[in-house]
Amino acid sequence: MTASTDAPKETAARKVEARLPRGLADRGPAELTAMRGMLEKIRGTFELYGFEAVETPFIEYTDALGKFLPDQDRPNEGVFSFQDDDDQWLSLRYDLTAPLARYVAEHFDKLPKPYRSYRNGFVFRNEKPGPGRFRQFMQFDADTVGAPSVAADAEIAMLMADTLEAVGIARGDYVIKVNNRKVLDGVMEVIGLAGDENAARRLIVLRAIDKLDKVGPDGVRDLLGKGRMDPSGDFTKGAGLEAKSIETILAFTAARADTLAATFKNLHAVVVGSARGVEGVNELEEIASLVSAGGYNDGRVIIDPSVVRGLEYYTGPVFEAELTFEVKDEDGKLVRFGAVAGGGRYDGLVARFRGEPVPATGFSVGVSRLLAALSILGKQGTESDQQGPVVVLVMDKEQTASYQRLVSTLRQNNIRAELYLGGSGMKAQMKYADKRGSVCVVIQGSDEREKGEVLIKDLVLGATLSSAPDRDAYLKQQAEAQFAVPESEMITAVRKVLARHS
Amino acid sequence: MTASTDAPKETAARKVEARLPRGLADRGPAELTAMRGMLEKIRGTFELYGFEAVETPFIEYTDALGKFLPDQDRPNEGVFSFQDDDDQWLSLRYDLTAPLARYVAEHFDKLPKPYRSYRNGFVFRNEKPGPGRFRQFMQFDADTVGAPSVAADAEIAMLMADTLEAVGIARGDYVIKVNNRKVLDGVMEVIGLAGDENAARRLIVLRAIDKLDKVGPDGVRDLLGKGRMDPSGDFTKGAGLEAKSIETILAFTAARADTLAATFKNLHAVVVGSARGVEGVNELEEIASLVSAGGYNDGRVIIDPSVVRGLEYYTGPVFEAELTFEVKDEDGKLVRFGAVAGGGRYDGLVARFRGEPVPATGFSVGVSRLLAALSILGKQGTESDQQGPVVVLVMDKEQTASYQRLVSTLRQNNIRAELYLGGSGMKAQMKYADKRGSVCVVIQGSDEREKGEVLIKDLVLGATLSSAPDRDAYLKQQAEAQFAVPESEMITAVRKVLARHS
Repeated sequence: MTASTDAPKETAARKVEARLPRGLADRGPAELTAMRGMLEKIRGTFELYGFEAVETPFIEYTDALGKFLPDQDRPNEGVFSFQDDDDQWLSLRYDLTAPLARYVAEHFDKLPKPYRSYRNGFVFRNEKPGPGRFRQFMQFDADTVGAPSVAADAEIAMLMADTLEAVGIARGDYVIKVNNRKVLDGVMEVIGLAGDENAARRLIVLRAIDKLDKVGPDGVRDLLGKGRMDPSGDFTKGAGLEAKSIETILAFTAARADTLAATFKNLHAVVVGSARGVEGVNELEEIASLVSAGGYNDGRVIIDPSVVRGLEYYTGPVFEAELTFEVKDEDGKLVRFGAVAGGGRYDGLVARFRGEPVPATGFSVGVSRLLAALSILGKQGTESDQQGPVVVLVMDKEQTASYQRLVSTLRQNNIRAELYLGGSGMKAQMKYADKRGSVCVVIQGSDEREKGEVLIKDLVLGATLSSAPDRDAYLKQQAEAQFAVPESEMITAVRKVLARHS
Repeated sequence: MTASTDAPKETAARKVEARLPRGLADRGPAELTAMRGMLEKIRGTFELYGFEAVETPFIEYTDALGKFLPDQDRPNEGVFSFQDDDDQWLSLRYDLTAPLARYVAEHFDKLPKPYRSYRNGFVFRNEKPGPGRFRQFMQFDADTVGAPSVAADAEIAMLMADTLEAVGIARGDYVIKVNNRKVLDGVMEVIGLAGDENAARRLIVLRAIDKLDKVGPDGVRDLLGKGRMDPSGDFTKGAGLEAKSIETILAFTAARADTLAATFKNLHAVVVGSARGVEGVNELEEIASLVSAGGYNDGRVIIDPSVVRGLEYYTGPVFEAELTFEVKDEDGKLVRFGAVAGGGRYDGLVARFRGEPVPATGFSVGVSRLLAALSILGKQGTESDQQGPVVVLVMDKEQTASYQRLVSTLRQNNIRAELYLGGSGMKAQMKYADKRGSVCVVIQGSDEREKGEVLIKDLVLGATLSSAPDRDAYLKQQAEAQFAVPESEMITAVRKVLARHS
């Protein structure tokens, strides 16, 4: 295609190219069936926890999403935006959390408090797409608004575990990691990086910690200090921290020990002198206690101080669901599958609208990532789970009404059925039935019509005919694979054939 | 809010208003439950007919949707559009048909032919919203691509009937009307309005016919002639046709007679001299024959020449599903509920991409309209269909872990349950349980805890206590409405109470 400046005038005269913009994808029946099954299981688990459905539109005011560029009246380039006829900026939703905050603020008085709700749907990112990175993808979120207690956070962590098991991830193949931003804040305070004036450096520190999995403790040490040269020779400038500060941060990320008691002892040691840090560790202890009470302290939910979640709006506990089994990465190296869900407490998001603090906590399932994981585990339903429709062949176009009668009879008896609607002959019709995954076809030529019969052809048996050991066996199989019955017995006969292969 | 030009800079300093752009709506659990149930029934019917799922993204190239303004490189204002980083115009999909045409053209070789598929999802119109008119709404479509035969059209008409019955519209409360654009083209030819040079006048004629329901035959006569003054005094300029031409059109729209034979006789009479018109009537006769073969000629599917569908891309048979029961309109007048689904044959839409004709026919369910109809008929599931969750009260914050254990036990036994997560006292917690529609709450005060018991409170029975006829009855009811059991019997006891009210 040529650029838009000259394309439109020409389109009437020539062919339009059938293609999708980058980072967008079509999905066929197998993936949609698997997706639907998975979404229903997630929904069932969320409902079991008392969360109720709510849906918001795809389009919101850009300011409601908090997506204007800092100090500018232009929307962030990461969101798809357009101006309404009154010149106000609208955007496609970027996640499901900002619209929830708007919804709660708008309907605050009529909602039960605390308000547990769930929602699923597509979100849009106007970012550079890449392998596995799309500009439209689905999330499935659960959030509790109006509950300041960390009991709400502990519940989210347990819900994450139950959700993964509901969709088919085995216990032991996943772990829910819990950390607390307040502990990190405490660490920052201890090393003198508190306050607005240090926001930029804190972000560098956050990013360095986030790379722990990839570059290891020594790599993080470099990133927190002078900088790090990666194997390709690229140099990343470091945070420039002093040696003592660096060791405090590394002690924090390595705080997880064999026992909870030891982990909490380590954490208390790194936040000495920070009230916020101590509060954060106490909250983690409370969460651990609630998780134990629920019986999830068997490795399903763990306290792991190395987890940092990127989003800046988190204000307390953060969660990450990680799949622990290994898969090959792009270079063929075995790596953990990684995160499929994450979340945390965001007490400030609703406050933007209400001017008063509204506590909130929740998490988001990366639906496509999770479906990909199920596919790798062989737990994803495939198209072949469903038998293809029975195809009624058209042997004589003049008799189409008779064939339509047969198809309608099949459908009225709840048998998935099709009239062949193309213009091709017998051979192409059989090929069509094959492509549709049909178990059998119904045939009525002039012979059968005169006798008031239909011929049922079992395509699955038919395909194995040549493998019969001897002539008798062949004839017996042939008689089963293709047989005539009176029209009045068509339903019974078709059901028998479908049952053979179900 | 102030206009976007000065708003963003201020938002950091002050509250953002929580509100939605016009023509967009949030949806709560009752509507979502009803919607989900209805969509599943539609899906089941489409699958029974052999249609398979496909999903396309919300964003397409504007040219692929055919949505550039004529002779301009600017997208039609009716669609939400934005430029990609390579300056190409993108738009939110306007319907589900144009994206299907793009999909089929792009994947033509790998698809079975004919290709029956269905899809559902939101579409977007950047139009002036009004009562019941939204800028985001849901459609559910089924289409057959690659079948030139009118057997495909007849199938669509029967599928429409079965779909309405599947969601709960009773036979007799709806009618599927079938007409054919070719017949209308024939009429135009007969009255000398064929050819590109008459496109504008044909559109006026089309619009006039479309108003038949509202203004009656005399009104249409005026609109086809000099024009019409409506009761409010507004004058609509007419098509300026001659009297004879007007009578031909009116004879066409009134062609429906008591018998099919008579209807076809009338239709043949108005298209005498137009080969295309005759072809159209013949096609309608074939559709009627197939519909009869399927058994749908009992008033479910009728031939009705008064049906015109607005969309210009239809090239053959058109369909409209009309609900025939009466509802009050805005002025309190009884009117038929009207159309909830429509479609037709569009042989040119895929051809835009392929440069060769690709026959296609299908229809679209207006999901919100249909749900509104079910609601009026009292067939829509409501929130009260589902019992609220069991709420475990928090009597002593220090004991939250014990309460969490009770909640987890309930959930592990597949009982929908919640821990009260707020900070309020007993009375507010009971009020919360009421708001959640809970059937019972589980209470463990210090007395119960010491005895290893829980107290189950049946909120439904409890609400009727005061209506007991005498003291004995009252005491008996009271004992049923609130009773203590050992913790180990909590599940059995809660199940008993839930079963009382299910």
